[in-house]
Amino acid sequence: MADYVYGPGRTHLFVPGPVNIPDPVIRAMNRQNEDYRSPAVPALTKILLEDVKKIFKTTSGTPFIIPTTGTGAWESTLTNTLSPGDRIVSFLIGQFSLLWIDQQQRLGFNVDVVESEWGRGADLDVLEAKLRQDTAHTIKAIAIVHNETATGVTNNLATVRKLLDAYRHPALVLVDGVSSICALDFRMDEWGVDVALTGSQKALSMPTGLGIVCASPKALEASKTAKSLRVFFDWKDYLKFYEMGTYWPYTPSIQLLYGLRAALDLLEEEGLDNVINRHTRLGTATRLAVEAWGLKNCTQKEEWFSNTVTAVVVPSYIDSGEIVKHAWKRYNLSLGLGLNKLQLLGCLSGVEMVLKDVGYPVKLGSGVAAAAAYLSNSTPLIPSRI
Amino acid sequence: MADYVYGPGRTHLFVPGPVNIPDPVIRAMNRQNEDYRSPAVPALTKILLEDVKKIFKTTSGTPFIIPTTGTGAWESTLTNTLSPGDRIVSFLIGQFSLLWIDQQQRLGFNVDVVESEWGRGADLDVLEAKLRQDTAHTIKAIAIVHNETATGVTNNLATVRKLLDAYRHPALVLVDGVSSICALDFRMDEWGVDVALTGSQKALSMPTGLGIVCASPKALEASKTAKSLRVFFDWKDYLKFYEMGTYWPYTPSIQLLYGLRAALDLLEEEGLDNVINRHTRLGTATRLAVEAWGLKNCTQKEEWFSNTVTAVVVPSYIDSGEIVKHAWKRYNLSLGLGLNKLQLLGCLSGVEMVLKDVGYPVKLGSGVAAAAAYLSNSTPLIPSRI
Amino acid sequence: MADYVYGPGRTHLFVPGPVNIPDPVIRAMNRQNEDYRSPAVPALTKILLEDVKKIFKTTSGTPFIIPTTGTGAWESTLTNTLSPGDRIVSFLIGQFSLLWIDQQQRLGFNVDVVESEWGRGADLDVLEAKLRQDTAHTIKAIAIVHNETATGVTNNLATVRKLLDAYRHPALVLVDGVSSICALDFRMDEWGVDVALTGSQKALSMPTGLGIVCASPKALEASKTAKSLRVFFDWKDYLKFYEMGTYWPYTPSIQLLYGLRAALDLLEEEGLDNVINRHTRLGTATRLAVEAWGLKNCTQKEEWFSNTVTAVVVPSYIDSGEIVKHAWKRYNLSLGLGLNKLQLLGCLSGVEMVLKDVGYPVKLGSGVAAAAAYLSNSTPLIPSRI
Amino acid sequence: MADYVYGPGRTHLFVPGPVNIPDPVIRAMNRQNEDYRSPAVPALTKILLEDVKKIFKTTSGTPFIIPTTGTGAWESTLTNTLSPGDRIVSFLIGQFSLLWIDQQQRLGFNVDVVESEWGRGADLDVLEAKLRQDTAHTIKAIAIVHNETATGVTNNLATVRKLLDAYRHPALVLVDGVSSICALDFRMDEWGVDVALTGSQKALSMPTGLGIVCASPKALEASKTAKSLRVFFDWKDYLKFYEMGTYWPYTPSIQLLYGLRAALDLLEEEGLDNVINRHTRLGTATRLAVEAWGLKNCTQKEEWFSNTVTAVVVPSYIDSGEIVKHAWKRYNLSLGLGLNKLQLLGCLSGVEMVLKDVGYPVKLGSGVAAAAAYLSNSTPLIPSRI
Repeated sequence: MADYVYGPGRTHLFVPGPVNIPDPVIRAMNRQNEDYRSPAVPALTKILLEDVKKIFKTTSGTPFIIPTTGTGAWESTLTNTLSPGDRIVSFLIGQFSLLWIDQQQRLGFNVDVVESEWGRGADLDVLEAKLRQDTAHTIKAIAIVHNETATGVTNNLATVRKLLDAYRHPALVLVDGVSSICALDFRMDEWGVDVALTGSQKALSMPTGLGIVCASPKALEASKTAKSLRVFFDWKDYLKFYEMGTYWPYTPSIQLLYGLRAALDLLEEEGLDNVINRHTRLGTATRLAVEAWGLKNCTQKEEWFSNTVTAVVVPSYIDSGEIVKHAWKRYNLSLGLGLNKLQLLGCLSGVEMVLKDVGYPVKLGSGVAAAAAYLSNSTPLIPSRI
Repeated sequence: MADYVYGPGRTHLFVPGPVNIPDPVIRAMNRQNEDYRSPAVPALTKILLEDVKKIFKTTSGTPFIIPTTGTGAWESTLTNTLSPGDRIVSFLIGQFSLLWIDQQQRLGFNVDVVESEWGRGADLDVLEAKLRQDTAHTIKAIAIVHNETATGVTNNLATVRKLLDAYRHPALVLVDGVSSICALDFRMDEWGVDVALTGSQKALSMPTGLGIVCASPKALEASKTAKSLRVFFDWKDYLKFYEMGTYWPYTPSIQLLYGLRAALDLLEEEGLDNVINRHTRLGTATRLAVEAWGLKNCTQKEEWFSNTVTAVVVPSYIDSGEIVKHAWKRYNLSLGLGLNKLQLLGCLSGVEMVLKDVGYPVKLGSGVAAAAAYLSNSTPLIPSRI
Repeated sequence: MADYVYGPGRTHLFVPGPVNIPDPVIRAMNRQNEDYRSPAVPALTKILLEDVKKIFKTTSGTPFIIPTTGTGAWESTLTNTLSPGDRIVSFLIGQFSLLWIDQQQRLGFNVDVVESEWGRGADLDVLEAKLRQDTAHTIKAIAIVHNETATGVTNNLATVRKLLDAYRHPALVLVDGVSSICALDFRMDEWGVDVALTGSQKALSMPTGLGIVCASPKALEASKTAKSLRVFFDWKDYLKFYEMGTYWPYTPSIQLLYGLRAALDLLEEEGLDNVINRHTRLGTATRLAVEAWGLKNCTQKEEWFSNTVTAVVVPSYIDSGEIVKHAWKRYNLSLGLGLNKLQLLGCLSGVEMVLKDVGYPVKLGSGVAAAAAYLSNSTPLIPSRI
Repeated sequence: MADYVYGPGRTHLFVPGPVNIPDPVIRAMNRQNEDYRSPAVPALTKILLEDVKKIFKTTSGTPFIIPTTGTGAWESTLTNTLSPGDRIVSFLIGQFSLLWIDQQQRLGFNVDVVESEWGRGADLDVLEAKLRQDTAHTIKAIAIVHNETATGVTNNLATVRKLLDAYRHPALVLVDGVSSICALDFRMDEWGVDVALTGSQKALSMPTGLGIVCASPKALEASKTAKSLRVFFDWKDYLKFYEMGTYWPYTPSIQLLYGLRAALDLLEEEGLDNVINRHTRLGTATRLAVEAWGLKNCTQKEEWFSNTVTAVVVPSYIDSGEIVKHAWKRYNLSLGLGLNKLQLLGCLSGVEMVLKDVGYPVKLGSGVAAAAAYLSNSTPLIPSRI
């Protein structure tokens, strides 16, 4: 069967997720089911659990690889660490933080929402004020997205930790790292994050299907007394099977486990910090292109610039839905963020044509030139080919 | 990367799940991510939701294709239809019903457990007694596995419906069809099942990753007032996106959607009833082999014989764990149930060798001969090749 | 196993062959061997042989799908139609015609070479003179590449036919269509081509492995008396198996047959003429970019412009080998020709960066802008998405 | 696209080639084209050429990996070492040796055919007589199949060498190892074989598409003066590119190169001698089954028993074509030889059912029992699982 809605040539996927899957990962997943109770699957799992900690930059954390999506990873994070009615300070800065807050409310927590204008990061002054006042420690957790996918805003987690430390506040720090981990600089142990979570279809460059949650010792401790009802997402079942050495309370996807192995191998081969630097370069190049087009970055200040997502404000006389539709109909282009420099330049060229087609007076080549000028100065040689 | 623990040749997967994936399904899943907000994915989803109803034999049901496992499908079934403290009559007849009951208890329901000796089906006499007494309709749901994977027992769902009708009892019928749907005769509408569920890695012959839940109009109605907390598993979010025509409240696995398409195409091509008949033949052949070996079927009466799982009682002087370990170590054979006649005969031959190796005085060839005699009388010609 | 020499991200393949394989073709080839003597393979082959004629635009031709490369297809063409010592008029206009002429000489033919300066097409004035003189019909065949891959020159086959007709000359017309068929306008029947050949790894967008040769009735007739020794490449063996309905004198690649099926399906879906128009647009856009860079097209006149290959002359102070090496080492870019507009623009951007890196004073964005301006005016909407 | 002619479940491929491809090999080939002139492909090729020598058990040989089939590998062997009119002593013992002899004759050699009754090996007494008489060394080559696929006969190559040495005869020894190399004991250097050849779709367990030819120093020397016309199959072109370090005179199949890498890795992992022993066990088990059925092995004496192919003589009242047709139509079974013990037992069970169906009075289970008894005594534990 060909693709469901036919378009000539390769589809150009530049959305903020799911992202393009590298060929070695697709290859690794091209396989039969296996018996997950045979000795092979636990042997594979054991090493995966060890290696996956590296993407969180943690040595003390305990990871859970859950057959679910980011939404399920959120739920796992909340229900394992908190009890109904617990107060959570939660930052609303865009569509994804909005959805997480909605979940927090529906799960029965007492959500103390701190809203920022879209395009701005979490308001940490408000957080400081709340922490200062909360001498009774009624705040049980801070819930924050590291990178808001909808607006292209990156929050400063180091500052969150500094504030908690300054006020010796014991609140748990729960971080949605869905569009950051493996692509932006994230440091679980150093920043004292208690639960960090991501999904396989983002910077790990895999299909959807794994929600990866990592818990600090303090979070694990909290899970022993957390009263939220949970079964499918319960860490306790995982921990029981970890101890038995069989690892899985229910059937994992064999294909995704081998895919994760391949994805981690690619990260190891390129080097996590090189991957992060690559995203820094590509993010910078994209912002330069947007500037060259005379368009506005949705993110209001440099301190919040995201290197994985650049959200662009289009002039009011342009219908942004029309841009996306037009790109798909004429250029087989799904708009969003690409993964490497040539794909990026191809994407920017495509965007220029689309902008022109829908009536924005863009100078063709202007954004590509700006991005290329930057990239040609900043791109290092491929180490294995020097 | 080759298989994690190397064994020469193809692995022989005869466990009750995950099962062998047909090549066309593997092929269909060998693909890139796509933008699930582009028009292609909803177009595909719409038809999948229509076609998946056929495996439940329902026209009035509403299916939910959830990125989870069977355990998650259980949780979705319970939390969407019931409120904490609700009374469920639940049948304990083996390991899988045990796990489901554990989940029911942990989710805060009032579980009225009806236990049978392992190897026997659900005790419907006890159900009748309970229904007769329950004139106040305190029983909100009956939870029952159609086929208990651990013991190879198939329950009689038609009788459950008959009893409920006889006593005009409004309890919901919640059915775990994980090891039955697509392989055993299952009729959602005719039997008045309110929620039926299965997983992709069983008779659909796919990787793990989809929990498929189908709700009757009555179950949907119940979901409007059910007070169990739920977000990831909440049908409401799905229904909202169904109405919008975008279908997915969160990112689906593109690969599994195309895999499901291919799996349903294969079912359509062979014909669901032909698939069910094939399992009847293979189950019968397997039982004849077990009999020829002089071993005992775990299932105590013919009325409960399962055509997807045959559990065998080994003499007390044989360690069944040793059988499984030996089969894997010497013959690269993961024991369980195969999918077609030659695989079955290969598996039976392998089992005979293993039994002999571990000390059971089996006559080599005896079981294979019994199974083959039956199969050679009962196997029809392949219609497309006549 | 990852790619042999690791480079981060997707490799950018812009060489004149092998070209990028569409995902549906890769998917179709992801399969087991089959028994080529079972009824399934002949059934598939029969339809393939019928459908493959369309890419040659022939109804009277007989195709041979040979497990070989373009070099083998050349040999099959020559040895089946000619006898040792036969005179061939052969046009030398670049590296590939040079190699074919070398083969003709080594196979013992009397090759009458007509050379053009590189960058120019076949000199048809010389052909006319030779035909005029050859009243004795000593010229047995004209051997000509439709598109010279090395220089990006397309020859005018219609004129060749016109000249032969004008002089009522019976010479066979043997055409290397390796970098033209399926991408440039090629008309076997209309132009009276006697043997046309291509390879799977070019515009069919498959792996290497099939040499596809199509013979006119006149060529088939010639093969009955041609005295060149041949076995592996002998059409006679194929024709014998065609008649028997089993089609294959020796084992075909099952995977490539299914890949060919998928490739032809994609061509059918887009429409062969739409594919040819797409290449016209992309070729034009590329030439505009080269012009904007101030570089020279290797092809000297518009009448010979190739829409599949654009060869560029670099200034003498630039080492073209350095360009290719640099592109691979820094940008993971294998230079050549892309397949669709965004890939093309990404490639052009990459080339601009490479040119700048190696010291050519290119204005970044200039070529991309020129190409994009043209493409945004000429690209039609995707029909299935209107 | 599903398989072309639909049959439920996995196809059972038990033909003497193409054989079943291991999953890691399929996985390795699931990939894009690459630029074969980039540094990656030569790097891969260099190691492949080194490693492929091991399957021939040669250190002094020079291998050629040619994009062709076994028929092409035959032609490459003959045309590179011999001149038209050269005398070849060639053994006719079955269908494949017949086809090779036909090729030798059509290529213009003087073929001295030594025929054996089918089911018997090459008549080495006749060879001895011919060598004794040939003091003028008019015999330029001995052409012999190591294993005749059609009759299941293995020739004794060590004796061929002994005879040549005894008479100090310089004739080249050309060996078709298509159904032996990688599965039967073959020793190029020890037995003084001058050219050995095989195809990728046999014991290397790959798709069709590579003809692998290995030449001794003496054969290479002969190629310098051999006058047979050749271009596509000419070793000279390969040797030229070997020297340049780019290896390929024309485009190789990237996919098959990676497939070969994976196939050689699997051989290395299991150990070539273990693979050969495995075939010995399976061949023995198959012969025991045939005996238990009361049928006759086509091979007349134990000294010629083949461990890769067992050809069975069916009683005259049974139509063997009917067996094959019936097996395919009813059991989705393509008859031939399997690759591992359970597949073998499944196949034998299938054959028993087919034999019974077509009227042969076989006792169901008899052959399986005989084979299983032998295998259960002879199969070692899998080393990596002990």
